[in-house]
Amino acid sequence: MMIIKIGGGKAINLQGIVADLAQLEEPFIIVHGANAVRDELAEKLGKPKQVVTSVSGYSSVLTDTDAMDVFMMAYPGLQNTRLVELCQQHGINALGLSGLDGRLIQGKRNVGIRVEQNGKKMILRDYSGKPYEINVQLLRLLLDNEYVPVICPPILDEEGTAINTENDDIVRLLQQVMGAQRIIFLIEAPGFLADKEDPTTLVEQMTPQELAERESHVEGRMKRKMLALRKLFEAGATQVIISDGRVEHPLQEALQGKGTVIQ
Amino acid sequence: MMIIKIGGGKAINLQGIVADLAQLEEPFIIVHGANAVRDELAEKLGKPKQVVTSVSGYSSVLTDTDAMDVFMMAYPGLQNTRLVELCQQHGINALGLSGLDGRLIQGKRNVGIRVEQNGKKMILRDYSGKPYEINVQLLRLLLDNEYVPVICPPILDEEGTAINTENDDIVRLLQQVMGAQRIIFLIEAPGFLADKEDPTTLVEQMTPQELAERESHVEGRMKRKMLALRKLFEAGATQVIISDGRVEHPLQEALQGKGTVIQ
Repeated sequence: MMIIKIGGGKAINLQGIVADLAQLEEPFIIVHGANAVRDELAEKLGKPKQVVTSVSGYSSVLTDTDAMDVFMMAYPGLQNTRLVELCQQHGINALGLSGLDGRLIQGKRNVGIRVEQNGKKMILRDYSGKPYEINVQLLRLLLDNEYVPVICPPILDEEGTAINTENDDIVRLLQQVMGAQRIIFLIEAPGFLADKEDPTTLVEQMTPQELAERESHVEGRMKRKMLALRKLFEAGATQVIISDGRVEHPLQEALQGKGTVIQ
Repeated sequence: MMIIKIGGGKAINLQGIVADLAQLEEPFIIVHGANAVRDELAEKLGKPKQVVTSVSGYSSVLTDTDAMDVFMMAYPGLQNTRLVELCQQHGINALGLSGLDGRLIQGKRNVGIRVEQNGKKMILRDYSGKPYEINVQLLRLLLDNEYVPVICPPILDEEGTAINTENDDIVRLLQQVMGAQRIIFLIEAPGFLADKEDPTTLVEQMTPQELAERESHVEGRMKRKMLALRKLFEAGATQVIISDGRVEHPLQEALQGKGTVIQ
């Protein structure tokens, strides 16, 4: 069992990834993003991404009702359906699922972001949160019957409301419940870069211990991403590969160990 | 087993329908449209619906690549995901599927529309076609495990390409393979109207024979719709109810026999 996380960047070579997947003999689950499609659609609809800064200095994207509509059009709408189509064209019997379908991914909605507006402190609550449970019976049912799950957010909160969440957290939960040993991240970079502005600083090999050390030197979103990676190992993963999703054969190259191999 | 077809009009009371569905004891499948969402989104994105007239005088909506993108955002994207969310909020364990998911609905792409442009006759081929096969194993698998399928187009052609199709044809195929006896259509009208411009001409009762007679007096899209209804009976349906999807309790009223009952 392998988990393949496909980034939602514009330059990701979906065609190449799916062609590679068609050669795979091991069962797999796909988790994908759609941020490029989402951001472009939001701009076109005149509802650009809103970023707010909390009192404590962190910035977050705010997902209000309109932003969730756009999110649904982009993630389970265009990106998931086109990806399922591409899989079907390559003989992969893909089945697209958001976290809402069959209560696949249950989460807890965030309590809100403390912000200061016009000199007044207030809490802004949006549709975002953290996943904590996967409907593993549903995934097993599909895999046992040879359907390939193609998963994306939104997920469901405890009141049955759709919320946005980090795909890295979904991958971590999936790894735990499915006991996946190998997780592949296909991103818009050659792999993990020591200096994220400089593609020549690719780190080719890392141990989970080195990951923890590096984590203590970074901040913000990168820190969250590295923590998510480290937790994959705590839960039993033996190999994580972060590789370039933009090349001709992204998955083949990843499986050959190009990019960053953490083990 | 009941099939509930929910129209894609703006005035359809989805909240009311789902509240009624939560009271239902019989297993059911939902098929839904999203034309209002699709048309509005297409306008906003500056890609309004294109209608072409064939040499023989019929007009059709043309689904090109851009129109299919918009279609995916509207149908499996916004409308399906929001409907699944609404179901989950009412305790219905809905699972959204387009015809692409797990090869649920296989179709044949139309050969094209003969049109005359600038004095030259030509064939315009778009992404549309007719469904001919349902993956009944997948539906049974989901229903047996207490998931409620919430289905919409697109469907898959023989090359694995997404194509648009008529929901009435999907309903007819579903009825055949699932042996559904009762089919409910929730639309933006009080039921079947003898004169479609005049809501006081509601036909309360009809036999399948009367349906065939009326069919011979109408044209175009209405003829196709009536043919689809008649075929439901040929394939073993015992009752079709066409009822108002805009009222407070659309499904309750339909089950009480309000609207048009054909049997």
